[in-house]
This record gives sequence, structure tokens and C-alpha cells, in this order.
Amino acid sequence: MPKSILILNGPNLNRLSLREPEIYGSETLDQLDTRITTRAKELGVTVEFCQSNHEGELIDRLHAAADSAAGVILNPGGLAHTSVALRDAVASIPIPTIEVHISNIFAREPFRRRSIVSGACRGVISGLGTQGYLLALDHLVTLLR
Amino acid sequence: MPKSILILNGPNLNRLSLREPEIYGSETLDQLDTRITTRAKELGVTVEFCQSNHEGELIDRLHAAADSAAGVILNPGGLAHTSVALRDAVASIPIPTIEVHISNIFAREPFRRRSIVSGACRGVISGLGTQGYLLALDHLVTLLR
Amino acid sequence: MPKSILILNGPNLNRLSLREPEIYGSETLDQLDTRITTRAKELGVTVEFCQSNHEGELIDRLHAAADSAAGVILNPGGLAHTSVALRDAVASIPIPTIEVHISNIFAREPFRRRSIVSGACRGVISGLGTQGYLLALDHLVTLLR
Amino acid sequence: MPKSILILNGPNLNRLSLREPEIYGSETLDQLDTRITTRAKELGVTVEFCQSNHEGELIDRLHAAADSAAGVILNPGGLAHTSVALRDAVASIPIPTIEVHISNIFAREPFRRRSIVSGACRGVISGLGTQGYLLALDHLVTLLR
Amino acid sequence: MPKSILILNGPNLNRLSLREPEIYGSETLDQLDTRITTRAKELGVTVEFCQSNHEGELIDRLHAAADSAAGVILNPGGLAHTSVALRDAVASIPIPTIEVHISNIFAREPFRRRSIVSGACRGVISGLGTQGYLLALDHLVTLLR
Amino acid sequence: MPKSILILNGPNLNRLSLREPEIYGSETLDQLDTRITTRAKELGVTVEFCQSNHEGELIDRLHAAADSAAGVILNPGGLAHTSVALRDAVASIPIPTIEVHISNIFAREPFRRRSIVSGACRGVISGLGTQGYLLALDHLVTLLR
Amino acid sequence: MPKSILILNGPNLNRLSLREPEIYGSETLDQLDTRITTRAKELGVTVEFCQSNHEGELIDRLHAAADSAAGVILNPGGLAHTSVALRDAVASIPIPTIEVHISNIFAREPFRRRSIVSGACRGVISGLGTQGYLLALDHLVTLLR
Amino acid sequence: MPKSILILNGPNLNRLSLREPEIYGSETLDQLDTRITTRAKELGVTVEFCQSNHEGELIDRLHAAADSAAGVILNPGGLAHTSVALRDAVASIPIPTIEVHISNIFAREPFRRRSIVSGACRGVISGLGTQGYLLALDHLVTLLR
Amino acid sequence: MPKSILILNGPNLNRLSLREPEIYGSETLDQLDTRITTRAKELGVTVEFCQSNHEGELIDRLHAAADSAAGVILNPGGLAHTSVALRDAVASIPIPTIEVHISNIFAREPFRRRSIVSGACRGVISGLGTQGYLLALDHLVTLLR
Amino acid sequence: MPKSILILNGPNLNRLSLREPEIYGSETLDQLDTRITTRAKELGVTVEFCQSNHEGELIDRLHAAADSAAGVILNPGGLAHTSVALRDAVASIPIPTIEVHISNIFAREPFRRRSIVSGACRGVISGLGTQGYLLALDHLVTLLR
Amino acid sequence: MPKSILILNGPNLNRLSLREPEIYGSETLDQLDTRITTRAKELGVTVEFCQSNHEGELIDRLHAAADSAAGVILNPGGLAHTSVALRDAVASIPIPTIEVHISNIFAREPFRRRSIVSGACRGVISGLGTQGYLLALDHLVTLLR
Amino acid sequence: MPKSILILNGPNLNRLSLREPEIYGSETLDQLDTRITTRAKELGVTVEFCQSNHEGELIDRLHAAADSAAGVILNPGGLAHTSVALRDAVASIPIPTIEVHISNIFAREPFRRRSIVSGACRGVISGLGTQGYLLALDHLVTLLR
Repeated sequence: MPKSILILNGPNLNRLSLREPEIYGSETLDQLDTRITTRAKELGVTVEFCQSNHEGELIDRLHAAADSAAGVILNPGGLAHTSVALRDAVASIPIPTIEVHISNIFAREPFRRRSIVSGACRGVISGLGTQGYLLALDHLVTLLR
Repeated sequence: MPKSILILNGPNLNRLSLREPEIYGSETLDQLDTRITTRAKELGVTVEFCQSNHEGELIDRLHAAADSAAGVILNPGGLAHTSVALRDAVASIPIPTIEVHISNIFAREPFRRRSIVSGACRGVISGLGTQGYLLALDHLVTLLR
Repeated sequence: MPKSILILNGPNLNRLSLREPEIYGSETLDQLDTRITTRAKELGVTVEFCQSNHEGELIDRLHAAADSAAGVILNPGGLAHTSVALRDAVASIPIPTIEVHISNIFAREPFRRRSIVSGACRGVISGLGTQGYLLALDHLVTLLR
Repeated sequence: MPKSILILNGPNLNRLSLREPEIYGSETLDQLDTRITTRAKELGVTVEFCQSNHEGELIDRLHAAADSAAGVILNPGGLAHTSVALRDAVASIPIPTIEVHISNIFAREPFRRRSIVSGACRGVISGLGTQGYLLALDHLVTLLR
Repeated sequence: MPKSILILNGPNLNRLSLREPEIYGSETLDQLDTRITTRAKELGVTVEFCQSNHEGELIDRLHAAADSAAGVILNPGGLAHTSVALRDAVASIPIPTIEVHISNIFAREPFRRRSIVSGACRGVISGLGTQGYLLALDHLVTLLR
Repeated sequence: MPKSILILNGPNLNRLSLREPEIYGSETLDQLDTRITTRAKELGVTVEFCQSNHEGELIDRLHAAADSAAGVILNPGGLAHTSVALRDAVASIPIPTIEVHISNIFAREPFRRRSIVSGACRGVISGLGTQGYLLALDHLVTLLR
Repeated sequence: MPKSILILNGPNLNRLSLREPEIYGSETLDQLDTRITTRAKELGVTVEFCQSNHEGELIDRLHAAADSAAGVILNPGGLAHTSVALRDAVASIPIPTIEVHISNIFAREPFRRRSIVSGACRGVISGLGTQGYLLALDHLVTLLR
Repeated sequence: MPKSILILNGPNLNRLSLREPEIYGSETLDQLDTRITTRAKELGVTVEFCQSNHEGELIDRLHAAADSAAGVILNPGGLAHTSVALRDAVASIPIPTIEVHISNIFAREPFRRRSIVSGACRGVISGLGTQGYLLALDHLVTLLR
Repeated sequence: MPKSILILNGPNLNRLSLREPEIYGSETLDQLDTRITTRAKELGVTVEFCQSNHEGELIDRLHAAADSAAGVILNPGGLAHTSVALRDAVASIPIPTIEVHISNIFAREPFRRRSIVSGACRGVISGLGTQGYLLALDHLVTLLR
Repeated sequence: MPKSILILNGPNLNRLSLREPEIYGSETLDQLDTRITTRAKELGVTVEFCQSNHEGELIDRLHAAADSAAGVILNPGGLAHTSVALRDAVASIPIPTIEVHISNIFAREPFRRRSIVSGACRGVISGLGTQGYLLALDHLVTLLR
Repeated sequence: MPKSILILNGPNLNRLSLREPEIYGSETLDQLDTRITTRAKELGVTVEFCQSNHEGELIDRLHAAADSAAGVILNPGGLAHTSVALRDAVASIPIPTIEVHISNIFAREPFRRRSIVSGACRGVISGLGTQGYLLALDHLVTLLR
Repeated sequence: MPKSILILNGPNLNRLSLREPEIYGSETLDQLDTRITTRAKELGVTVEFCQSNHEGELIDRLHAAADSAAGVILNPGGLAHTSVALRDAVASIPIPTIEVHISNIFAREPFRRRSIVSGACRGVISGLGTQGYLLALDHLVTLLR
């Protein structure tokens, strides 16, 4: 498995630890990336990171991942609830994508309880905090072996 | 953590490997239980198993778990989409519950894309196959330490 | 009126005082039963108690009540919002049923604001705490005299 | 408890006994008021009565009750299903309000099965006939003691 | 038929000829009343007129009409779309009511295309301009003979 | 006004007096036509009659009426609730159309309470029995003079 | 029982065996008619057949059946989902009608899962293939005896 | 065909003849079972009967039928409208299931007009009274031969 | 600009400072009126004040304002969400109306997020506290100059 | 490609140039047919024309086209929004159908924005005026070669 | 017509031939552009191409086209179903825009059957494969001449 | 208050004066900025301006404003109705945001009457033209002092 896993974070995740910490926790995105890298090393895989507040940028990165990555861990942020274009980008690449949400979106406002993107993903982890990323990584590594 | 983790499976999961294997896989529930037990031993925890097709039985077990267990992994099967009583049972116990679905319910028929139970759980794992149970176990052990 | 009044409690009401006490109060189901028995004696009637987390059990008891009871006080718990079968059981017996909810279901989550069972009951008392059972008893005794 | 209980009846309740007696019974509003007064005397409280077909009048009386009354029994009539202003009036006063409906609104036309006012009340009694007022009075007296 | 016909106009009809004349025409309410009186004389009946912007006033008048009138012609104005209390008042009196709308409410904004009041009326005339009142009068006279 | 008025009746109106007489009355369509002819003579206009159970036939007749008639009285029967094509036919001709329903469709089953055709008509008369046709005729004659 | 049973087929059923045979089977309508005739002879009744793609024609035949037939077996085809006029035709005749669908409409596209016509029929058979017609015939013969 | 046909009845069907006889008829479940047994003998098949008010029991029996039965006739009672778990149980077994309703559910209250279970069944018979069971038996025998 | 600006407050605004102060603030309506008068003087205009809990009274005042006022600042309170009649009154007068809400109705309960009245107003200010009235005044003065 | 292309026009298209010319243009159907014939000659194909206001006639013609035509250009008029039977007819023939609308139905009233027929067609052209027919012809010729 | 036609493609269209080829075909976007250029030369017009996965970029290009282009052919991809901003951009420029979809969006998932953008476009071509672009070009050239 | 106020304009607002001037007026964005700057100077605060058609750019600017600005005036344009990500960005910063719309969105097409963003803002001004920005500035300055 020479290819890496892409960790792709959508809008507002750059504000992790600053944004509503009672919901999203006090860990920064950099600290999370470090934890993911550590776990990736244990599993013998490499990871790439990308965060963007731009839907188009996220789509571009998903397209690029079709060649460069073996799988994707995607936290679409608020775009989960509104973006058919992001869903189509996930569907347009032949590698597995796991959708991750830090908070349990199914226990929040009605408009957050439905993700348009989920239907094109292999699976979803929601509400397990930032550990969700690590568990998704474990799953992808198991799957790709 | 002397208490165990309860693995609670709802209606039709006794038919794992027999029921629509293209969706749910060819592993039996017994084989899955064995895999979970192995992982639990690695993690230093004990697990209890229960499967029932009776909503009332599942509620009884959740109530009992309030005293006997440190956390619950719950696959509510089709009750996920219809049972307020099961949701209330989850909400009535002070230990964390993780909801697990083998298939990705968000990519299936419309009536399966909403789980009433999720809003009372700590988090949800959907579509990662039977590995979802193992990842939920990892999360609970991390959480409870 | 030689027949008794059946006090029938549905899912999760066995956890009264343990379950979300800020909503349901700190009285146990046993303490409530004692209060109801005292009031029944004052009114000169006998009461029977049944609590079950099983929809089927509740239906069986309603059927049996057609012969053994003069009226029913039913707290269907979460089944209120989902069970056509329970509604049909109420409609299938010729004795009056009063639906009681301890909390005011009309001031809670949207999915709790509609009871399918109500349409087959004689009346509904919601939000008057456990006193709702006593008032329902008063009503049944008045009605049956 | 020197303050009284306000019995507040909304539109069309002045036509009790004249209006669809198969639904609302043959008792007049005056006869009902007499029964309530008798019961109030037994309980050692005083009651005030008001009936109006004007939403604004009902709101004015609720506001006045904030100072003059210890609790309210409110039958909003058809305004139950349409009046946010009446709900806001109930929410704007610091004394408990019990909503009463003579018929079981949950067993009638779809547009009658939802009360906007209920969410601001302490509780609801529906379908117990005019006895509902007496039971609400019992509850308020118990509560206020 | 010694009793009269009540012509009852709801909110904003006092502004006839001033209010959106491209929709409601340039005739004033007084001019309309004169035309109705003339027609009533031809038919040998008497008519009473009432216009009010107060829902409660309209309900009071409907109640009074139960004794004083043989039938009602009701233009509920905007209350048609929102007032269950007005519908109940119509249903509470034993004389026939015809609902009249000057404009064709079924060809206007979506929220105007449904009248809650219609279900309690004998019939509806909509969109025939102010002549609708005269036709309703013809119908009531035919009916009552 | 040398042109005539077209009286156009849709599906099932040929069964008038045979079909659910408690709703539609015991008058036959022929008897009704005779009454309309009599009234037309009094008003000095001629009338043409057409009844068909075929939507296409009704549309053909509406088109023909654009040249031969000065106005239309249309009872679309059950097509009122479903036919955009009939609505379009009404909208495609430059003469006024009045929609008539014998029963009060707004007091019947939910699916009968909305007419798609109404939005293209000048006005609607519903629930005034077969007299509705005569009143519509009066209106058209007044309008066309 | 000298009268016959009318077998009435709606739009597109003339294309049986040509139209989506994986759904509707490979039997032609003529072959089916022969099978029905054979069964009718066994049961000692006569049958009449009619297929039309015209809603109006189907309504005309239903009306005629009021006099000539003892019962109707109706496959309304796609009109099942849209035609209030056809429903009204069924309701306008005093003989029993059984609705038959060859495929199981409840397991197909959402817009096919509701039949407007069913509410006016005695009963429905759906998904039992062309045998559904024979079973409906059995039922009608039993019923009419 | 050495295997039998399972006749599975859901909640409240044990009260046949006692429950709303104007809807469900005056035949008891025992009498119906006898009629089915007689017909089965004629057809040369054996039948097994089960009635339960417990959703879980019905699911258990469906699972067992996968091995012991050649087909199922299922009247899910009120669970038809609410139970995804029962639908999943039907879908999880490889033998054909016919859903039967004694009354015509499509002509009753709105919440009864949709069956969640139908989508997993081979076909549906609704409204043909208790004869529906016999016709379903005929169909299964034809199908299995 | 000799005419004044009408400041019209609807139901429950007389209870400002008493009613849910965490939402509506601790300023009384009198204190607010004083602040508005001060600002009006600075701007060189006169203001009139009216508060009523009666929908009809508010409509009467709007009609009167057509002659006496140059513009209206309207806080319809809870009527915003339910009153077509009030909307029609606003639409029936030729002077500009600005709708003001003290709290941000778009961040509250679902039923408060839609104002029927807004569609007939020139503009809306919501959530800027009582300063909203002053800003609306500034706008009207700018507009009318 | 010896077979022709069928140009099939539904209800009200015979009134082209007479019907709402600001929406549908001033060209008559005959003039349009001439333009289509000219273009067909250039492309070396023959065309057949049919217009009917009868749904059944349109279905009959679609069935006939299965043998006589190589493709269909269908403007279903108002039936687009309501006719499942027409959709089924399109689905029942093995030749490609292109749906054409002269106006842009997606920019009109809400009930015109959804075509039930589209789901069974190969493609849709809407809003390109009568040129839409010519473009559809170009597409079919390209496709069939 | 010295100005060019802008061919504007939205998210994921850069993956044409790679993305779900059974739906979108095996032609690349470059090959399509070449075909369009060839056709444009035949028609004597010039074309410009732009593809972007960024909604903002598409809006910027539409704005620029107001000056540089005579018309636009827009395939909004998944943004069709979600972007009011894109619709507004189309509405903000005075040149005609034709919306093109390669697949027939009306025959796909429910969320794809509605395009928010269509209402601001001159017309729509859906399901005619990549030829849709060429036909749109033909239309624009005809229109602009 | 050394920090400035950010004036953030979303998609299509760069086309002010060019885009539908009957709705949005003839003032350019530059002219508006000048007016805002003038008012800011009077109030003694500084303002920064940003307009972008890119959702991501707007989110980036909101994040940056958390450090550089004391408050935000946001006109989200069409994103108001669709962007959860923008709402989340507003919610993720600790400074007050006022949403401004030039036109009265509540009097326009149904899809424009709901803003997803409003729920995270302090308040909303809609329909007061470009003066809305100035009034929002007044409010923020008052608030921040």
C-alpha cells in the first residue's frame, strides 16, 4: 500500500478548539493531525492533510486523491447538509471514503441530522469526538489490506 | 473497570450470514462474537452478548446494564427507525451507548436513513461492516479509562 | 362495581425516579402504586397494577382487562408515539381507557407531541405529574357510577 | 393561598349545551360554574370566572391574573389550535396554567389534534368532559399548597 | 319567514373601494349594503348588516343570529384562512351560513387558497365580485322557503 | 349577446339522482337541464348542454366554445382535483368560466378540498346544490351585459 | 345470478407480454381472458371483458355495469394513482368492485404505492400476478351467492 | 411439497369476532383456522397456525419458517403500519409471504393506508374478509407447484 | 411632513420587562416610548403610540393611520405568525409599514421563524432589541423626506 | 431507417397561437408542422403528426408507434404533470421518446415544475420555444444512425 | 454577433469519462470541447470554455460574460440542485443562458429532479448526452440572429 | 473600540446597480461603501469592506474578523438560503454579526423567505434598501460602547 490516506477537513474545522468547545472539544486541528500521524505510523501508512473552507478546493482535492491516495477520511463540516457537488465528487472517485463528524450530528438541530454526502461514502462515524478519525483510519487500513 | 461492556443486537441480527449476505456479509453472529471477545481480551475488558427480536427484551437488558455494565454497543436493527421506547431506554441509563449499523443506512431506502435512537446515543458508526463493533469497543475502552 | 381498575404502565416506567428525574420526578413506581392504592380505598374500588417493557404484554393485559376490569389507566410511555397495535388493543375492548403522561408531552421534542394511542382513549391527562394517575382514577370512578 | 383561581373559557364556550351537545354535553356554562364553585368551597379556595369570544380579552385577563390569581384553568376553545398570542400570554405570567378541553381533541379532526397553547401550560386534560375543570382545580390546589 | 338574514363582514371589508381596488373593485361597503337591501326587498325578506375587524365580535354576532336570523351570509376576510374559533361559531348555530369571497381566493397566494371556515358552512361563493352576496341571498331565500 | 352559454358537466354527472343521492340529491341531469333552460329563457339567453366522462371531450368542447359561446358553466366533477389539462383548456379560451360543484367540496374528504381548475376560472360556487348552476347563469348574464 | 362479472382493464394492459415482461409476465391479455373464461365456467358465471386506454371509456363501462353486471374486477393501470373521476365512478354504482394489480404496487416507485381508487373498492389484490384476477373472481362469486 | 404453510396472525387478531365486528366480522379466529384447514386438505397441503401480540414472537416464527415452511400468510395487524423489524424479518427468509388484511385498509384512517411490510412481501390481499386467507393459500399452492 | 408616525405594538408587549426578561430585556414599554419620543424630536417628527392585545383593535388603528399617519412601525407580537387579517390591514393602507421584533425570531422556536405579516411590509428589523424601533424611525424619516 | 418519427402533441396544443401567445408564441401548430417537415426532409427522415386532447388517444398512438415509428417527440401538455398512464405508455414501447415543452416549465407555477412523464423519457427539452421540436428531431436522427 | 458563446461547466465535469461512465459516457471534456468548437465554426461563432469546481468561480465567469459573451451554455453539475447564488448570477446578467445536463436528471434520485437554477434560465436540455451542448449552441445562434 | 467593523458582502452584490435595479436599486457597491465610510467617520469607527462570490472566501474573512474586527455586517446574498457552512462560521466567532438584505426577502419567492444564517446572527434587517447597512452600523456602535 504505497499510497497514502487523505485526511480532508471542510469549513470551520480550522477553528477547532476556538469554535464552540463545549461541542467540538479543546484540541486544535494541529494537535489532532499529530495524533493521526502517530497512529498512521503504528499502522505503517502515510497520511496527507488538507483543510479548506472552499467547497471547490475540497472537490479538487478529492479528484486528485483518485490518483494519489488509497482512501479518504472526510469531515465535510456544514457542507455535509447542503452539497450535492461534494457528494458527486466522492462518488466520482474509485477509492473508499469514510465520513467523520466530531459531534453526534443526529442529536443536534434538525437541519444537521441529514448528510447528503453519506449516501456516497462507504460509512459514517459520528459523535465519537476526534477519536473518530483514528477509528476511520483503522478501518481503512484493515479494508485496504 | 471491573464492569463489562454489553453487546446488544436487535431484531434479525440472529440471521447474520443468512440474511441478504450481499448487504450484511457472510459472517455469523457467533463468529462475530468470537472476534469481539478476542479484541476485548486484548483491551483487558470483558464483554457480554445479547441478541433478541423482542423490543421489550432489549429494553430490559438496557435497564439491567445500568448496574452491570460500563457501556453498551447497540445495533437496534430495524427498531432504530421506529422505536421511541428503545430510545427512552438508552436515555434512562447513565452509561454511554454507541449505536452500530453493519450496512451504511444512509445509502439505503429513505425510511432507513433516520434513526430515532441516535439522538440518545453518544455516537454512531454506520457502514463499516462488522468491524464497526470492534471500533465502538475501542472507543468505549478509551472513553472509560 | 365489583371489577377493578387496571393501572397499566409501559416501557421504562419501571425506572421512575432513576430516569431523568428532572422530568419524571423522584418518586418510585412502588411509591406511586401505594399512593394509588390508598386513593382507591378511599373511593371504594380495587386496583391492579402492571408494568411491562413489552408491547405484546401490554396488549395481552388490555385484552384480559376486557373481562376482569371496569376501566384502564394507561401510561404507554414511548409506545404512545409509535404503536398502532396498542391503539388497536385499546379500541378492541369495551371498557373506558384514560391515557396518562407524567410529563407534559406537548412541551417536549416534536416526535413526542403526538400520541397515536389517544384517538382510541376516552381522554388524556398530560403534565400533571404522578397526580395524573389519581385524577384519572377519580374520573373513572365517577364515570362508572 | 389568599389569591383565587381563574377559570378562563374561550370562544364558543358560552354556547355550552346549545352547541353540538353530542360532543360537548347538555350542561350549561352556568351549571358548570356552580359545580366548580361548590368544589372550590370544599377545597377552601375561591374561584373567578371569565368567558370571552375575544382573544384580546382572554389575553388581558391572563395578564391581570398575574397579580390577582394563584393559578389558571384555561379552555382556549378553537384558539388552542391557532393562537401564538394566547400562548405567549400564558408564558408571560408566573403562575401555573392548566389547559382543559371537554372533548378529546386528539380523537377529532386533524386540525384539532394539535394545541399551540399546550407548550406553555403546565399540563393538559382532554376528553374527561366538564369534570376536567374539577380535576384541574384539584391539581392546582395540591400544587399550590 | 319573519326572521332576517344577517350579512356579516369580517376584517378589512370596511375598506372596500379603498383597498386594492384592482382586486376588490371600487364599490364601497355602504353602496353594496344598499344593493343588498334593494334585492332583499324584491325577495320579501329583511337583512341586517354587521362589519367588524374583531374576531370576537363576529363570533358574538353569529351566536346572536341563532335567535334573531334565519340565515347568514359571511365574508370572513382574512380570518377565513386562520380562525378555528370562527368555524366553531358557525358550526354552533343551527341556521345555514353561506361563505362569500369577492375575489377568487383560489387564484391568489397559496395561503389564501384554503378556508378553514368553509367546512362548517353550507356552501361557498368565491370570485363573483360583490354580486356573490346577492346570489347567496337568492339561495338562502330559496332554501328557507 | 347572440351567443349562448355552455353548461358543461364532467365525469359521473350523468348519474345524478342515481349516485350517492344523500350527497348529490334526487334530481336527474335532464330535470336540471330543464330548470336551467327555463331560467335562461327568463334571462333572454340560450344555453347549450354537454356532459361527458371523457376529459378530452370536455377540452374539445371548451375549445369550440371559444367561438360559439359567450361564457361557460363548468362542473368538472372529479377532474377538478387532478386535471391540469382541463385547467389549461379553461385558460386557453377568452370567455369567462364559472366552476360549479353541487356538494360543498370543502366539507368533504381532504383530496376533494382543492380544485386545480379553480385558478383558471372567474369564480367558484360550491355546495349550493343544483341551484348553483342557476346562480352562475345569473352571474354570467349580468357580467356579459 | 344471471348477470355477468365485468373484467375491466385500464391503460397499457393491452400491451401485456410486450410491456416490461420482467414485471408483468409474458402472458398476453387474450391468454389471460381465456384463463378467466375457463374459471368462470367452472364457477357457473359469465364474464365480459373490456380494455381501454381512455379514462372516459372506463367510466362509461362502469356506469353501464350498474345495470348489466353483478360485480366488477378492475385493473385501473396507471389511473389508479391519479384518477378521482374513476374512483367516483366506482362509488357511483351499487355493485362490488375488486381492484387488481398484477405487480405488487407497494414494492415499486413511491408514486405507485398509493391508489386513489382503492378507497371506493370492496378490496384489493396486488402482486399475485395474473392469478389475482382469478382469485378476485372466486371472491365475487362467493360474495354474490 | 412436504413443508407446510404458516398462517401467522399479529396483534389483536385473537380478538376476532369480539373486536369491532362491523369491521372485522363475527367469525372467531378458531373458526377461521378450521376453514383454512379444510381448504388446505382439499389442496393437499398442511398448515400451521400462530397468533401473537408480540412483534418479537412474530419475528421468531418467521425465522423458524425459513426451515419449516414453504410459504407464509401474514396478517401483521397494526404492526403493518409501523414495524420495520417485521419487514426485515420477511425479507430475511427465502420463502414467499403473502400479506392479508381482513378489512380494506385503503378505505380507513390515513395512518392505516400504508403498510411498511408490503414492500417485502410477494403480494397483498386487503378487504376480502377472512376469505383473503383462503385465496392467499390458493395462490401459494399454485406458486409452489 | 405634518403627519405623525404610528408606533403600534401587539399582544403581550404591555408586559415588556415583566415577560421573559432574558429574551425581551428589562425596559418597560413606557420607558421605550420615552426613548422613541426623544429620538422623534431630534428628527423633527411626531409619534403616536398604541398597544393592544386585540387583533381587531390593531386593524382599526392601521385603518385610521391611513389618514392620520405618514408611516407605521408595527410589532405584531405573536400575531405575526398567525394573522392574515393583520397582513391584509397593512396591505390595505398606502403608507409604509416597518415590522419590528425585539428578539431575533429567526433564532427561536420553528413556529416563530415565519411572519405572515412581513410580506405586506416594506421591511423587517428583528433581534436588535428595542433599538429596532429607533432604527425603523430613522428609516421612515429618511424615506418620507 | 425506413420508419418515421412520430410528433405527438397533447391537450391544448391545437390552440397554439390562440392560447396565451405571450407564453407560447404566435406560430400555429400547422406552421410548426411545416417547419418540422422541412427539417425532416433535410435530415432524410419522414415524420408523422398527431395532436389530441384525449389521454387515451395519445396512449393508443404511442402503442401503435412501437411498430410504425423509430422514435417519438412528445409534448404532453398539461398531462405531463398528472398522468402516470401516459408515463407507462412511454415506458411500454422500446423506441426512444424525447419530451418537449415550448415554454420553460421550470420557471412557471409550482405545479408545472415537475413532469411525471420525464422519468420514462430519454431526455427533455424545455423552454426553447418551438425550436425544441427541431432540436429533438436532430437528436433522434443522430441517435438512430 | 462579434461576441462569443461561453460554455460553462460546474463541479465534477472535469472528470467526464472517469466518473460513472455508464451514466455520463466515455467522452472526455476535451473531446467534447473539440466537438463544440467544430460545430461553432460551422455556425460562424466563437466559443469560450470554462470548467470549475468552485461556485464562486462560476459566478465570477457569469458576471464577466455579461460583457464578453452573447449567451451562455451552463452545466451547473450538482450545484443545480442547491445553489441560489448561481441562480442569482444567471438572473443578474442580461444575456440568455441555456442549462444543459448530460444525463436525464428527471429519471434519477429524487434530490436531482429539481434544479434551482432552471427558473432563471431561458431553457433546459436534459438527458440528450453531450449532444445537448451542441443543440443548445444551435438554439443560441438561432436566437441571437 | 480600536477594532473596525467588517462589511462583508456575498455573491452577486458586486453587480449592485446592474442586477435587477427595480429590486436592488441603482446605487453601485462603491457608492454604498462611500456612504458607509462617511457614516462610520461620524460615529468614530473604522470600517473594512470585502465582497466575494466565493463561500469559502467569506468564511475565511469571518474567521479573520474574530481577531481584527469588533463586529460584522453580513449580506450573505443567495447563500443566506443554502449555506450551513456560512452559518457555522458566524457561530464560530465571538463578535456580533448583523445580517442585512437590501430587498425584503420575506416578500419574494418562497425559497428566499428563509435564511439559514439568521439563526446564528444577533439580528436581521431586511427590505430597508441600502440604508439597512447604515442602521446596522448604528446598532453595532451602540452595542459595542
